[in-house]
Order: sequence, then C-alpha cells, then structure tokens
Amino acid sequence: MGTPEIVWSCIALVISIASFVVAAYFYQWVKKLPVANARMEEVGKLIRDGAFTFLKREYRILGIFSAVVVVLIVLFFPEPIWHGNAGKNIQMAIVYLFGTALSGLAGYVGISIATLSNVRSATAAQESIQKSFMAGFRGGAVMGMAVVGTSLAGAAIVYLISGDPEIVMAFSFGASSLALFAKAGGGIFTKTADIAADLTGKVELGIPEDDPRNPAVIADNVGDNVGDVAGMGADLFDSNVAAMAATIVIAAAIGQIDFMFAITSMGLLASIIGVFLSRLGPNGSPSRALNGGTYITCGIFAVLTLIVTLIAKFDIRLWVCAMLGMVAGVVIGITSDFFTGDDKKPVAKVAESCQNGPAFTILNGFSYGLLSCLPALIGIGLTALISYKLGEAIGPGYAMMGISTAAIGMLSIIGMIISNDAYGPIVDNARGVAEMAGLGDHVLEITDELDAAGNTAKAITKGFSIGAAGLTVISLLGAFLELVNQALTEAGQAAINAFDVMNPMVFFGILVGAAVPAVFSAMLMNGVNRNSQVMVKEIHRQFNSIPGLREGKTKPDYAKCIDISTRGAIRELIPAGLFAIIMTLAVGFIGGPEAIGGFLTGNIVTGLLLALLMSNAGGLWDNAKKFVESGNFGGKGSEAHKAAVIGDTVGDPFKDTAGPSINTQITVVSLVSSLAATLFVRFHLF
Amino acid sequence: MGTPEIVWSCIALVISIASFVVAAYFYQWVKKLPVANARMEEVGKLIRDGAFTFLKREYRILGIFSAVVVVLIVLFFPEPIWHGNAGKNIQMAIVYLFGTALSGLAGYVGISIATLSNVRSATAAQESIQKSFMAGFRGGAVMGMAVVGTSLAGAAIVYLISGDPEIVMAFSFGASSLALFAKAGGGIFTKTADIAADLTGKVELGIPEDDPRNPAVIADNVGDNVGDVAGMGADLFDSNVAAMAATIVIAAAIGQIDFMFAITSMGLLASIIGVFLSRLGPNGSPSRALNGGTYITCGIFAVLTLIVTLIAKFDIRLWVCAMLGMVAGVVIGITSDFFTGDDKKPVAKVAESCQNGPAFTILNGFSYGLLSCLPALIGIGLTALISYKLGEAIGPGYAMMGISTAAIGMLSIIGMIISNDAYGPIVDNARGVAEMAGLGDHVLEITDELDAAGNTAKAITKGFSIGAAGLTVISLLGAFLELVNQALTEAGQAAINAFDVMNPMVFFGILVGAAVPAVFSAMLMNGVNRNSQVMVKEIHRQFNSIPGLREGKTKPDYAKCIDISTRGAIRELIPAGLFAIIMTLAVGFIGGPEAIGGFLTGNIVTGLLLALLMSNAGGLWDNAKKFVESGNFGGKGSEAHKAAVIGDTVGDPFKDTAGPSINTQITVVSLVSSLAATLFVRFHLF
Repeated sequence: MGTPEIVWSCIALVISIASFVVAAYFYQWVKKLPVANARMEEVGKLIRDGAFTFLKREYRILGIFSAVVVVLIVLFFPEPIWHGNAGKNIQMAIVYLFGTALSGLAGYVGISIATLSNVRSATAAQESIQKSFMAGFRGGAVMGMAVVGTSLAGAAIVYLISGDPEIVMAFSFGASSLALFAKAGGGIFTKTADIAADLTGKVELGIPEDDPRNPAVIADNVGDNVGDVAGMGADLFDSNVAAMAATIVIAAAIGQIDFMFAITSMGLLASIIGVFLSRLGPNGSPSRALNGGTYITCGIFAVLTLIVTLIAKFDIRLWVCAMLGMVAGVVIGITSDFFTGDDKKPVAKVAESCQNGPAFTILNGFSYGLLSCLPALIGIGLTALISYKLGEAIGPGYAMMGISTAAIGMLSIIGMIISNDAYGPIVDNARGVAEMAGLGDHVLEITDELDAAGNTAKAITKGFSIGAAGLTVISLLGAFLELVNQALTEAGQAAINAFDVMNPMVFFGILVGAAVPAVFSAMLMNGVNRNSQVMVKEIHRQFNSIPGLREGKTKPDYAKCIDISTRGAIRELIPAGLFAIIMTLAVGFIGGPEAIGGFLTGNIVTGLLLALLMSNAGGLWDNAKKFVESGNFGGKGSEAHKAAVIGDTVGDPFKDTAGPSINTQITVVSLVSSLAATLFVRFHLF
Repeated sequence: MGTPEIVWSCIALVISIASFVVAAYFYQWVKKLPVANARMEEVGKLIRDGAFTFLKREYRILGIFSAVVVVLIVLFFPEPIWHGNAGKNIQMAIVYLFGTALSGLAGYVGISIATLSNVRSATAAQESIQKSFMAGFRGGAVMGMAVVGTSLAGAAIVYLISGDPEIVMAFSFGASSLALFAKAGGGIFTKTADIAADLTGKVELGIPEDDPRNPAVIADNVGDNVGDVAGMGADLFDSNVAAMAATIVIAAAIGQIDFMFAITSMGLLASIIGVFLSRLGPNGSPSRALNGGTYITCGIFAVLTLIVTLIAKFDIRLWVCAMLGMVAGVVIGITSDFFTGDDKKPVAKVAESCQNGPAFTILNGFSYGLLSCLPALIGIGLTALISYKLGEAIGPGYAMMGISTAAIGMLSIIGMIISNDAYGPIVDNARGVAEMAGLGDHVLEITDELDAAGNTAKAITKGFSIGAAGLTVISLLGAFLELVNQALTEAGQAAINAFDVMNPMVFFGILVGAAVPAVFSAMLMNGVNRNSQVMVKEIHRQFNSIPGLREGKTKPDYAKCIDISTRGAIRELIPAGLFAIIMTLAVGFIGGPEAIGGFLTGNIVTGLLLALLMSNAGGLWDNAKKFVESGNFGGKGSEAHKAAVIGDTVGDPFKDTAGPSINTQITVVSLVSSLAATLFVRFHLF
C-alpha cells in the first residue's frame, strides 16, 4: 500500500467521523423537538414498537442466514479451504460479517430517527411549514449521514487492514446480501399493509387515508419506516459499498485507490455541507428546497473534487468521468421526474384515462413506464461509453476505471440523496399521526404539501439509485473479469479476453440471466399479493366482529395487522433472493466464467429495464391518483377515482417492493460471481 | 450453385406446388358448405366487406411505404449506387418487392378463406361438432398451406435465380417489413374493437358478447380476421422466410444449402400429410384433435428427415439439431400452456384473486407472466447452446449452422401450426355470427367448445413462434457478423471476431437495443388505448341517440365503428415499426457494426422477455375470465367477473397487439442490420 492510499483512506475515515458527529447533532436536535399530545405519543409509540418488533424478527432470520453464509465462506470462498489459504477464507468471513453488521446498523439508525421525527414533524406543522420541513429533513439527514459515513468508514477500514481488494468484495457482499433481504422484507411488509388499508378503507368503506378506525393503519405507518427508510437505507448503503469495492478491484491494478477515496471523501464532505445549507425559505416550496439542496451539493462536490484533483495531481480525465456520472444521475432523475411528476403530461394523461375505467389506467401507465426506459438506458449507456473512452485515453487498465469512476461520481452525493429520500416516509408518517391524533385540517394541508414534495424528490433520487446500480454493475462485470483472469493465470490457463455474444455459452448465460430479475420480481409481488389478501380478510373480520368499530367508538386490533405483515414478510423475504443467488451458482458451475459473463449481462439489461418500468409506472399511478384526488376528472369518490386507486394499488408493489429490490438483486448477483470467480474457473461442467 | 442445391430447390418448389393444390382443394371444400340463413349471409358479408376494406386501405399505405423503401434500396443498399454495383441494388429492390407482395398475398388469402369459413363453421354446428370443427380447421389449413408454400417457393425461386444469399436477405426483409406493419395494424384494429365492445357491452350494459345491438360487434369480428388471421399469417410467413434466409447466408459458406431446402421441404410435406390426417373423432375433444395433429406432424417430420438425411448423406448431427429445435418448440409450447391453460393452477389462482378486486387480478397475472419467461428463455438458450456445440463438432463454420438448423427445425412443421392458429379466429368468428344470426344455444355451446380449444392450441403455437423467433434472430446475428466481415475484408480491414460485452460500444448498443422493444410495445398499446377510447365514446353516442337501439328494435351503425378501427389502425401502424428501424440505423451509423452487434443482442433479450410476458399474461387473463364465466367464484355478473374482465381488457393488447408484434420487430431489426452491414462498416461516427 503506498503512502497516498493510506493518507486518503485516513482522510476518508476523518470525514466519516465528521458525518457521524453531524448525524448525532441532528439526532439530538430532532429529539428535543416537542410532541403535540398524549394521543400522538401513543400513536408514535405504536409505530415505533411495531417497527422495532419487525426489525428484531427480521434480523434474527438474517442472522441465521449470515451464519450459514459465514460457514460457506470459510469452507469454500474464495477457494475450498483444503485447496488454498485458510487464513484468507477466515478473513473474508469476518469481513463479510462486518458488512452485514454495518448494513444492519444503518437500518436500525434509520428507524430510530424516523420514528422520532414523524411525530415531531407533525407537531411542528402546528407552528409552521418551515419547522415541520426541518424536522422531517433533519431526521432524514441523520440517516443520510449515518449510511454514507458507515459505508465509507467501513470500506476504508477494511482496505487499510487487509490491503486486498478481494476482501473488500466480501465486505460489499455482506452489505449487499443483507440489503437484498432487508429491502425485500421491508418492501413486502409495507405494501401488504398499504394495499390492504387502501382497498378496505378508501375503496370499500370510503373512510379517509390514515383513519384510526382502519385496523391496518398502524401497520401501514410501520411499513413506511421498515420499507422506505430501513430498506432504502440498506439499498443505498449496498450500492455505495459495491461501487467502491468494484472501483478498488479495478483501481488496484493501476494504483488509483487514493483517487477513489479522494472522490468519495469529497462527496461525503459536500453532502455534509449541503445538508447544513438546506432549509425552507419563508415563501419557498418544499420540493424546490429538496432539489435545490441536491443541486447545491452537486456544485460543491464539483468544486471540491476539482481542487483535490489539481492539488493531488490526479488525472483530470478521471475527474471528468466523475462529473459525467454525477450529471447523468441528475439527467436520469429529471427524465423520471418527467414521467412521474404531477405537473407533467404523463400523469395528466393517465389521470384522464381513469375516466374510461381501470383497464385504461393500467394500460396507459404501463405504456408510459415502458417509454420511460429509453432515456435512462441511453443515459447509462452513453455515460459508460464516454467514460470508458476517456479512461482508455489515459492508458492501459484505465478504461474500466473510467466507468467505475462515473459510478462513484454518481453516488458521491448520496449523503444528500438519502437525506431527501428518507424525508419522504418521515413526512408521510407525520401525515398519518397528525390524522390519527386529530391535529386538524390545517396541519394535514401542510403535511400533504410536504409529502407531495417527498414524492417529487423521490423521482430524482430513484433516477440516481437505478443509474448508479447500472454503472456499478458494469464495473463489477469488469471486476469479475479481473478476478477470473487472476484465477486463470494462477491455474496456468489462458486469460479470457472477451465475453463474446457469439460464444453460445455467453449467449446461454445472457438468456438465463435475463429471466432472473423477472422471476425475482414475480416472487416478491406474489408475496405482497398473498399477504395483503390475508390482511384484507382480517380487516373485514374486525369490522364485522368488533362492535362500535365502524362508528369509531372502539379501537381496532392494530397489533393483529402488524403481526400479519411481519409474519408474511419474514416468510417471503428469503426465497426470492436465494433464487437469484442459486441461479448464479448453477450457471457458473454449469457453464463456467463465460456463462457468468453472459449471465451478468442479461441480468443487468432486463434488471434495469424492469426496475425503470416498475418504479416509474408505479410513481406515475400514485401521482395520477393524487391528481384525481385533488379534484380533477370528478375528484374523490368518482368512478375515475376508483380506477385511479386500482392503478395505484397495482403500482404499489411495482414501485416499493419489486422495482427497488431489483437494484440490489443485480448487485448481489454480481458480487456472488466475483467471490466465486476462482471456484467457477476450477469447477464447471462444460 | 452445385447440383444438389438445384435438385433440392426444385424439390422444394414441387412440394410447394403440392401445398397450393391442397390449399385450393380445401378452399373449394369449404366454399361448398352451406350457409344457414339470409341473416347469416348478411352478417358474413358485413364482416367480409369490413375486412377487405381495411385490407385495401392498409395495403395502400404499405404500398407507399414499400415504394419509398424500393427507392432507398436502389440508392443505398447494399452499397451506395455510386460506389458499387448498380445491378445488385436493383436486383435487391425487385426481390424486396417480391417479398412484400408474397407476404401481402398470404394475408389476402387468409382473409378470403377465413371470412368464408366462419359462417360455414357456424352453420355446420347445427349438424354436429365434427362438421363444424372440420369447416374451421380446413379453413385454417388453407392459410397454413398457402403461407408455407409461398414462403418456401419464394425462397427457392429467389435463390435459384440469384444464387446470392444477400439477395435472399432482401426478400426476407420485404416479407418482414410488411409483416411488421400488417401485424401492428391488424393488432391495433382488432383490439380497438374488442376492448370497446367488451367494456361497453359486457361491463356497462350487461349484454352478452357478440350481441347484435352492440355497434362494435361487427368491427370486433372483422378484427379477428385482420388481426389474428392476416396479421398472424404475415408474422409466421416472416419468421419462416427469415429463418431460411439466415440459414442460407450461413450455409452458403459451407455448402449446406441443399440440406436447408431438404429440411424445409420435408417439413412442408409432413404438414400436408398432418393436415389431411387431422379430424375430430365421434367422442374426441377438439383440443386433443388440434394438438394431436401437431404431434403426428412432428413424428412424420422426424421420420421423413431421417430418411432424407441417410439417403442424401447429410451429417446426422445436423439432423439432431433440427430435432432439437422441434422438440424445444413443443416443450416451450407446453410450458406456456401451463401458464395459460384453463385446467392449470395459474389460471385458477388468478381467477380466485379476482374476488379481491381488479388490482389483485392484474398483479397476480403479471407475476405469473414474469415467471413464465424462465422456462422458455432457458429452453431457447439450451437449444442454441447444444446445437452450436453439435455443429462445432462437425467442423469450422458449422457452429452457427447448428443454431440456424434448430431454428428451421422448430419452424419446419409451421404449416400445421398455422392451420391450428388460423382455426382459432375462424371458430371465434363462427361463434359471433351464430349469436348474431340467432342460431340458438345448442350451436353456441358447440362453438364455445371449439373456441376454447383454439385458445389452448394457441398457447402451443405461440410457444413455437416466440421460440423460433429467438433462434432465428440468434442465427441472423451470425449472418450479420458474416456480412460485416465480408464488407470489412473487401474494405481491406481486419475482421471482427467477437461482439465483446466488455467493449463499451457493444455494451452501449446492448442498452439501447434493450429499450427498443419496450418503446415499440408502448407505442402500439398507446395506439389501442387512444382508438378504443374514441370508439367507446362512439358507442355511447349511438346508444344515447339512436332510438330503439337498446331494445334491439333498430340496428346500430356498424360501419361507423369499423371506420374508427380502420382509421386508427392506419394512423398508428407505421410509427412504431419506423421507430425500431430508425433506431437501428442511428445506432449503426453512430457506433458501427460493433454497436449493432450489441444492439441486436439487447433487442433480442428484452424482446423475448416482453413477448413472453405479454403473450402469457394476456392469455392467462383471458382464460381466467372464462374460468369465472363458467360459474366459478360467483360467475357472470359477480364482482369477481368484473375484475376478471378488467384483467382480460389489459391483457388484450398485451397478447394480441404488442406481444406478437415484438417477434416481428426483432426480426426486422436484424434484417435491416444485415442489409446495412456494408454501410455501417463504411460510415460510422465513432
């Protein structure tokens, strides 16, 4: 390890610690805010307890899963223990556990703060929209700072201690495998409750959202926390670590690891500054405040990294790659905003088609979802192409470095992105508790406005996360080839120069890999389906058997619904992820590294397509429903509204369960391939 | 050209002529059957006139389109006329026109016979189910024989006259480009009418399907003919010609063109025999009769080709490849039957979920559609892999020949497949005219049973057509590489050995290519959306303004609805296909042949995925609706039924507009690439 690498790893550590300090400061700041009344305390506690109960049970399952993986790593990875170096296997297992632990911690911190901020943001809304915004945003920022700080510090520590890029991969696999299941579990939990609550409450009984008579209402609010806050945190933690791990593998060969840590550190620093600067002006719009924060952070990041590049004499072309990635993230975000924003044509068109019934709502939204794939895929493709060419011009080995630099560039300002993203479910929850604690219509108006801003910001942050996943997995493909060739050289075999589409083994891999995200999403959606049907039945049971519930004289049995969501999610969270991992191993052991090269390609391609389709169509239906609810085409209660609710219900698992989980699925599959590279080289059928 | 090639081309011609004789015989046989009554004559004439009116207007537009393409070919393809050999450009243009003309003819013949058979099949149902079945099946067989005969004869003639594989590509492009637009136009027409008729008739007014009071009912029946008969005929004509063209390009280098004609001739011969043997036994089930015919034809094909292989001393391994393709087609068909068959679990599950409302119907069906992609993609991948390896063992140049042989093997019995497929819309129409002519419930029961068998058979035939398209485009990718390398050699440049995924130009192409089928399907579905909304308004207008219509005392204005479908389809049929072609040219002129290699790969992968998803989910919803209608979960008129109808409506453009058009889209894009190979080599930006 050279001095610059050590210096920059240490700087990364220092800035990570600074981010923890900021997180702690915001945590205290939020915690000191007042809570409106006893009813709200009570509701807040119900949500908090529900979320932690789920988290505990989820982590118990994931603990068992991780223990099994640890044993497998010790026995087989990167090489069977009787073949290779037992010490390395053990090191990898430890680092894997470290990755899972940090990823779990990120989720835990997120839920802790989110379940404090929700009630405080609702209370602050009694005073002013500015205060309410700040409570929500700073709550989100705790998560943002904690996630990015831990991921950067984790990568720096693992690299400083081991000095071995392959070990960093194991750390990343720990983070990703946990993220995969946390995302899936949280996504199933939240949508089970959300769908069941909407279908029975809004559609059948005609009671408002978050009405305390609805037995699923607490479960729905718990879901926002475990799905959108904890799950999303784990997801972005995973993307960030994976991008760094891939870059470390690629950069090791050309001595550019210092550059990697320089860029990521400056990204975190820029996010810290950006988060501090973000606030809502006296007459400002919350959605402009959120997006403004993102743009300011981008600007700070550009300036900081330019200075660092000039001082440390990094190649300026690599800096350009990082900028390209950042700009591409913003552009992809803006295009997905076009397809999902409630002030744009697609939402208005879909809302209009609701008048002709739900079939048209579905068909129209689905078509726009398909259309939305084009700009994002071209954007990712162009960014990869240009950054590759820029890197190639620097020298041998730099081409893939260009792509992975674009990926870390796109993820650099992720501290800010997560803050914006976690803000969404917090203010959504604030709306829920305000309704249940009876804070009145004025408060609801404010929280509705804040919530809508969260949805708009989400479009942009989702663009970032899908784009970043795309670039990351392309660089992971490069990292995989690197590791395969190391293994081939060690085994005295010729290196692989290409994953040639005309090679039938590669093509076979492509087709199988292409099917995996489809099956994976189907399994998650079926999980939501099954569970929410169970919950709908339970809600019917409660309304039919608890006297006085309909009239609001008795309380429903909230715990029962939380329990259904929890059990369902726990049961369903493992199979889909396991399927993806097993398919990877099967293809690798059957067809060897070339089949895996194809498999990853197919997986990336349909994974990105389905993720974009599902996220954007889901967001579109959600906003089309809100568009109708705000009084268009007949407003609430009209036939158009019923159709819009059906569209939204279909979109729920699209955008909050399957869509965002696919990101993690493609990362995990790529990491499994890299870890098993040596095994695939040694043992394969054909 | 060697003697064996000439001999086998001539045998192909002779068998093609035999198939025309059979087609003519069946045509006369059907025409002589009686028609029940004057009312039926009248309804039949309305349908027939509507179909031919649409066909005329469609062909006028396609004529203009073809004229433009002819000019472009003369000027630019395969090389700019001022660069290369003007004679070849003109030859290509003529052959292109020949391809479009034959493809158009296939559609024309199909509509002629289908609009005769429908009324006769309905009339025959008064006597017995056997007679009704024979009228429908032999009507379909006219189409089957005509399509396969023309495609084989066309390819043989073009090859005999030109002796140049590249010219056969132009013939294939003619067939495919027409098929693309005919399929799109027919698909938009039929679903516009079908959706509008269902939504207003079944859902709003509660009148039965095919009720003569519904103004869209004739348009709906016209749609079956122009969409399912003519469009499907053009589609399979195109697949068959494309598979032959790709094989000819690949086989030319290794002198195996005689083998290609031998296999395809025997396939047609087997289909002729199979069609003659097919009939419905006294207590037989129509669906077993249809599938039984397919299996018998497969057996005859296997025996005939084995004999020919042994006598003509072809390599037995190539025969195995053909068998592999055939078996894969059947297996893929059986798996799609699992996902869409009304006696299987998925249909029952989706029907059950209808009880919980349309959102669950959609989510559940969509999930099964996603799951259904896995076995088919693995099947196509394995077939390609094994046949490549078998070919590779024969010698250099034979590897791709293995894959293309598997493709022609899968398509070999297409004569039988088309007969089964065209049977479906004919008996569907028979049901319609029986209802409108008031033939009574007994006849409706018979036609319902025949119709259900058509739907089941369709699952298997769709498996064949998607699988065959997959294998065909893989071999077209090989043909493209072949042509690129010829052009590179001529230009004195080094040949391309691989389309390497790690080459960013290839990867860029993959991502852009992946987006094309998504956008293409979205454009077609939006077309259906827009038009059916217009038609729904028109139907409302008629019911509100024509006195006595509701009570059945006056006739509705059928012509107005036919006109809306026609205008809409004519307006929408060009843009989607043109988009795909323009994207291909743009990527090629920007990134050169390597970008196109990636583009085709991405296009195939997501194309197959979306085609499978849409076809199977659509078929599943259709049968789930029928399952509910047959009395399950509350039966007709229940809430479950309403949800099932919404699912079916969403599925309509999935399975009959977008899904099947994607096949043709990927073929056309591959052919455009091959034709423009020389241009892409010469002129590209990067």
